[in-house]
Amino acid sequence: MAKEGILIVFSGFSGAGKGTIMKELLKRYPETYALSVSATTRSPRPGETEGIEYFFKTREEFEKMIEKEELIEYARYVENYYGTPKAYVEEQLLAGKDVILEIEIQGALNIKKMFPQALLLFVTTWDGKTLKERLLGRGTETLDVVQARLLRAGEESQGMENYDYLVVNEDLGRTVEQVHSIICSEHMRVSRNTEFIHHIREDLNNFLKGD
Amino acid sequence: MAKEGILIVFSGFSGAGKGTIMKELLKRYPETYALSVSATTRSPRPGETEGIEYFFKTREEFEKMIEKEELIEYARYVENYYGTPKAYVEEQLLAGKDVILEIEIQGALNIKKMFPQALLLFVTTWDGKTLKERLLGRGTETLDVVQARLLRAGEESQGMENYDYLVVNEDLGRTVEQVHSIICSEHMRVSRNTEFIHHIREDLNNFLKGD
Repeated sequence: MAKEGILIVFSGFSGAGKGTIMKELLKRYPETYALSVSATTRSPRPGETEGIEYFFKTREEFEKMIEKEELIEYARYVENYYGTPKAYVEEQLLAGKDVILEIEIQGALNIKKMFPQALLLFVTTWDGKTLKERLLGRGTETLDVVQARLLRAGEESQGMENYDYLVVNEDLGRTVEQVHSIICSEHMRVSRNTEFIHHIREDLNNFLKGD
Repeated sequence: MAKEGILIVFSGFSGAGKGTIMKELLKRYPETYALSVSATTRSPRPGETEGIEYFFKTREEFEKMIEKEELIEYARYVENYYGTPKAYVEEQLLAGKDVILEIEIQGALNIKKMFPQALLLFVTTWDGKTLKERLLGRGTETLDVVQARLLRAGEESQGMENYDYLVVNEDLGRTVEQVHSIICSEHMRVSRNTEFIHHIREDLNNFLKGD
């Protein structure tokens, strides 16, 4: 059916596991998905690599990208800029790949305005308790940072209705298959297949005339 | 996520295989789905059983059901009435089953008006040629009937945009899994999970206040 790729926006509470889900999705279906690598001005965490997790930019470099309109969207979150370089995304969509962007809610809504066909997924836990446990379990954040992230989760929960699907991440393997399944199903959406509809309609008419 | 059942409307070109898909879906997932049995005034085909394929009614009986508002929807197609008895559908939805209705396009649109949350699936072949071959392959219809059905398919194709998803039935096993996947994904739709969203929002707020 629809051959052009779908732009998939992946958001969710910090600690709900969206990064892990995306990595696993790409590992299982490397031919189907492309991950958009964001640009950011935040400092790399231990183990993060330039061009893999993010393109790490100085504030000056980032503001130059904004100015030259090289970003699909960008947002400021806490002290830092996060943005989506345009060229790579467009290339991959044309090549028929579903392109996944991991972005904050503010960026997600900007994307939806610019690309109404974008698919917005929100990753959550079942409850706040699980979320806090996961954030503490990371061991990389201070208690203050955990509290700030939980506060942020409360704020972000106000925007959940703007998304298309909710994914409750309980079991990684299962969640990955659910996400894959949502995206495959979306390819069969009528609104993404107007070309096919025109084709079969014309086909049926010609066929009847010619018979 | 969403625990209440989804009302699923299954339409498609005659010959595209919707009946077979539905039967196989119910066979594979008997706990998930319930099939709504329609009432009709048309005569049983060889092998069809009262209460399985249809409730076979006289015109008088059918018109009495209309009068008593015992039908969710009904439509006249060619010479006959087809309709959906209300009570069974409502019971099954409340019990958390996804209820599948196989109805013509006219009935489908009436359902969507009454139940905006209904999920409308349209089953098609890739092209008209395949459709004709399948209709002829049945061996139960005269060439005139096949022609009438193809004419009808051309008319029905005008309404495809009113559906939510298109399913191209090429390989039965694969199509059944696609349909199941579409329905499972729909349970994760934000618009079907407002209760869950309210719950986690409140949960996050209470949790932060209490900490």
